[in-house]
Amino acid sequence: MAKRLSGVFAALTTPFAGEKVALDKLGENLLKYNQTGLAGYVVLGSTGEAVFLSDKEGEELVIEARKKAPPSKKIIVGTSRESTRATIEFTNRIAGLGADAALIKPPYYYKSMMTHEVLKRYYFSIADRVGIPVLIYNFPQNTGIPISPPLLVELSGHPNIAGIKDSSGNLSNLAESLPLLPEKFSFFMGHGSILLAGLVMGACGGILAMAAAIPDLCVKLYSLFVEGKNAEAKKLQLDLVPLNKLLTQTLGIPAIKHALDLRGFYGGPPRPPLLPLEEKEKQDVRDELERLGLLSC
Amino acid sequence: MAKRLSGVFAALTTPFAGEKVALDKLGENLLKYNQTGLAGYVVLGSTGEAVFLSDKEGEELVIEARKKAPPSKKIIVGTSRESTRATIEFTNRIAGLGADAALIKPPYYYKSMMTHEVLKRYYFSIADRVGIPVLIYNFPQNTGIPISPPLLVELSGHPNIAGIKDSSGNLSNLAESLPLLPEKFSFFMGHGSILLAGLVMGACGGILAMAAAIPDLCVKLYSLFVEGKNAEAKKLQLDLVPLNKLLTQTLGIPAIKHALDLRGFYGGPPRPPLLPLEEKEKQDVRDELERLGLLSC
Amino acid sequence: MAKRLSGVFAALTTPFAGEKVALDKLGENLLKYNQTGLAGYVVLGSTGEAVFLSDKEGEELVIEARKKAPPSKKIIVGTSRESTRATIEFTNRIAGLGADAALIKPPYYYKSMMTHEVLKRYYFSIADRVGIPVLIYNFPQNTGIPISPPLLVELSGHPNIAGIKDSSGNLSNLAESLPLLPEKFSFFMGHGSILLAGLVMGACGGILAMAAAIPDLCVKLYSLFVEGKNAEAKKLQLDLVPLNKLLTQTLGIPAIKHALDLRGFYGGPPRPPLLPLEEKEKQDVRDELERLGLLSC
Amino acid sequence: MAKRLSGVFAALTTPFAGEKVALDKLGENLLKYNQTGLAGYVVLGSTGEAVFLSDKEGEELVIEARKKAPPSKKIIVGTSRESTRATIEFTNRIAGLGADAALIKPPYYYKSMMTHEVLKRYYFSIADRVGIPVLIYNFPQNTGIPISPPLLVELSGHPNIAGIKDSSGNLSNLAESLPLLPEKFSFFMGHGSILLAGLVMGACGGILAMAAAIPDLCVKLYSLFVEGKNAEAKKLQLDLVPLNKLLTQTLGIPAIKHALDLRGFYGGPPRPPLLPLEEKEKQDVRDELERLGLLSC
Repeated sequence: MAKRLSGVFAALTTPFAGEKVALDKLGENLLKYNQTGLAGYVVLGSTGEAVFLSDKEGEELVIEARKKAPPSKKIIVGTSRESTRATIEFTNRIAGLGADAALIKPPYYYKSMMTHEVLKRYYFSIADRVGIPVLIYNFPQNTGIPISPPLLVELSGHPNIAGIKDSSGNLSNLAESLPLLPEKFSFFMGHGSILLAGLVMGACGGILAMAAAIPDLCVKLYSLFVEGKNAEAKKLQLDLVPLNKLLTQTLGIPAIKHALDLRGFYGGPPRPPLLPLEEKEKQDVRDELERLGLLSC
Repeated sequence: MAKRLSGVFAALTTPFAGEKVALDKLGENLLKYNQTGLAGYVVLGSTGEAVFLSDKEGEELVIEARKKAPPSKKIIVGTSRESTRATIEFTNRIAGLGADAALIKPPYYYKSMMTHEVLKRYYFSIADRVGIPVLIYNFPQNTGIPISPPLLVELSGHPNIAGIKDSSGNLSNLAESLPLLPEKFSFFMGHGSILLAGLVMGACGGILAMAAAIPDLCVKLYSLFVEGKNAEAKKLQLDLVPLNKLLTQTLGIPAIKHALDLRGFYGGPPRPPLLPLEEKEKQDVRDELERLGLLSC
Repeated sequence: MAKRLSGVFAALTTPFAGEKVALDKLGENLLKYNQTGLAGYVVLGSTGEAVFLSDKEGEELVIEARKKAPPSKKIIVGTSRESTRATIEFTNRIAGLGADAALIKPPYYYKSMMTHEVLKRYYFSIADRVGIPVLIYNFPQNTGIPISPPLLVELSGHPNIAGIKDSSGNLSNLAESLPLLPEKFSFFMGHGSILLAGLVMGACGGILAMAAAIPDLCVKLYSLFVEGKNAEAKKLQLDLVPLNKLLTQTLGIPAIKHALDLRGFYGGPPRPPLLPLEEKEKQDVRDELERLGLLSC
Repeated sequence: MAKRLSGVFAALTTPFAGEKVALDKLGENLLKYNQTGLAGYVVLGSTGEAVFLSDKEGEELVIEARKKAPPSKKIIVGTSRESTRATIEFTNRIAGLGADAALIKPPYYYKSMMTHEVLKRYYFSIADRVGIPVLIYNFPQNTGIPISPPLLVELSGHPNIAGIKDSSGNLSNLAESLPLLPEKFSFFMGHGSILLAGLVMGACGGILAMAAAIPDLCVKLYSLFVEGKNAEAKKLQLDLVPLNKLLTQTLGIPAIKHALDLRGFYGGPPRPPLLPLEEKEKQDVRDELERLGLLSC
């Protein structure tokens, strides 16, 4: 990867029709996303319900994404598995389909055994053997395994470990590690409510679930920061917090999908065990989007 | 299942030669286990490194186990996946290979969305559609998702939900739910340090990782309880605690495998990212086995 | 202390009239408790709302308790403070009032600084300088500071550290430490739902909040165990679980006090910020007591 | 309070000589702090080892601080106790000694009973009855009781609740609540590693333990932000992170005191159970201060 990744990436949803993956809907969504200022996309991320997909479904989604996205839009793919060998194997299959980078969370089932040493060897083994750059994915709310700043600094010394998506919400991670990371290392915020705070402290962009629903406003927030328009950036950041909380914490993936439906994308149902929204919850999503002036009707 | 499951089950390890599954070694181990008083085996459990195995590897292990175990030894198989449909599909494939019951942990990646309602529907959907009895697997140390006593009581009303393996170490779970469970429901202890305490309070047996390494003593502890030999049972239980802690908490799966090697079974290496024991740790395992008089040399 | 403490102790409530301590009511309650088979009482414990009391109020309560209890009923007093010196000073003042032992929880405000070493020195400094035996109080649900089995074993080597009240609910603590504790060390269960399980594994008794409301049944459970009446003991233990959960977890101290009111003791209101029970909650307490046949009317 | 509190406050240490409070040393320190741009001081905060002090010691410290600090330096005092009445009583005694505001953490011993409703009544009862403005103190790492954004918003409606010190490190708290708080409400950052991030998002200042050791640099960071010197502010913020981590997380209060000793203030020993630094740890503090150019020799 010649150039450091930066900017705003959308963590894409996986469209289902019934319980089947609807590749055509992903393609249609991408044609719309391509019109935005997004730097690229994450396929098979947490937002993409990756843990519910078979390897084959995952590969087809990546093929479709690569086909519909122009080369200027980078494609990052979630490829982690619990075992080192399965992660390497799946990452290389995905690399062969044109992905630009792999987003890899730590193994997290055997919690008490995931020591600093085990995690370091896991990431180094993978980085040594895969054909695309590795981004570390720190999301301890879901995995229970935090990537500590000292571990991150060690990992960043590997030439094929190119960055991190930090969704922890703990900005100290960035503050403690950033001065010790290589300049070309990409520190992405993964938590949409504190994107601006992260950018001010030195993050290079955001990889956001919220950006699947409102790509334009997420890109605008990033641009306002880059242009030094501090007051406007702060206002927009605070404006986005209630929607972000609704989509990523209170209601989660089914709410992101409903927001997509309301905004002219294809959202559709989640895959069970996730449940579709109830009417009251749908109204909450609609209300937030209206408050932001994002629903014309 | 005509008869309630009970007694002591060993949670089996998965033997690897290099990183490949060594089916023949599983078979050899089973021929030895068959000589013991174990009620049966768990294949593809936490001890079996199931999260590191492909579906195909898992199926082959079950086929081999079924082939080598006599019908009197029940075979319980860990079959859970994050999605409801994948769990149903894999469970039914495994049922077709002769498994007696499926051991199913809750989905655990999307922690904040795993509400009582979502978990209930998950287990009911599965129990409705699989051809073998379902045992619930409560292991919040690894999943972060506890099965609460009220949820367990609700689930126990389903005719195809036959029991639970509770590895939480929290004996209140048993105390709070047992009086409200159907009589034929099997409450298995999954934590070897408090097996006797659970039996005294009404558990029907244990499904234990430790039983892979020392099946005879685990069976003996159960028998002493059944025969009402309280003082001897208490002494043996307390004697087993240090080994159990070493094998299941301090050192984990690699230590269980090393104990197997020392005791004439095939243990072998774990699959990465798990690391083999260091020399000092191997000595700790050996010391504990010697203290229990389990190593002749 | 010539003789090891054992048996069932009630953790007493502190009676308030309005917000004032009602010493006379404590005295009246004690005259009733003295008729039971309780081994003694805890004054100024968690159940006693000790953290809401001034030193002077605490001292008056101990004086009253000592006055009303016969010498055969041992009085254990909660005397811990955050600082070592304040704990020593208050413990010695309480010792001078006739307390038989001090129940001391670890300091818990500066959580990250409460290392093994700090805790060891805290307990040793205190045990060195107080005139009555020290019982360690392990209640990590409230303090956030668990007393690990290895720490407990170290502490038990001090001649003036006489026992532990373990309210953690984690029976592995007992299983891991008991074989390494001096014979005269008193391991008390502090969690009423698993008292029997603890006794079976070697505990010497229980120090129970529930015993303030239903002393007779708690003593009976202990006696059934001592007499080897296993089936009856098990039945009674399981019968008591729903009440114990209600009084110690779901509703807490205000429910214990309401149970006292219903059973002919003086309960009265808790001190704010604790709130009195709502009507529905009062009914829940009444229902449980009725189910146990403890309300004549 | 006519004017909203803002700017940088130092959370002061409590000087001990032996184990006695050394009031004169507090006075000497204050004469130096008065020369800085600090907006004021916190006495009896977490940094001040308040939980180790008697009421009388606390009052003497406040009297001395008020005597040595000019009226332009505001004095905030930590006054919370577990019971509502004790908190009111102590706060009013402190108010009579010239404190400008009270910093009050939630009650935290009875964790399971500290519901939204209980906390709301606690703070409202206090704010109703004390003669100085109340600042809420959110420090869940030590208390285990987080103040949620919705609770904060409710509390901010009380005319005598003037602000919050948020030491949680979770910047979402600010992002979620700020747009819903009254304009005159003071949102202080309590976590020195993310002060700048908080200011950018709308915080009015910081109340910092680190500011006891390096008041000038903390004030400078605040000033750079106010003056819009973004690049310099970011550089300084990141420069301060390692020292802040050392003083407030890795080593804690004894390290703050040692830093004071090295910088010409009186630090002295902590009160037991806290332990003084070991030589290696002292060197770590010295190294960080040297790296920042704060030790002349």
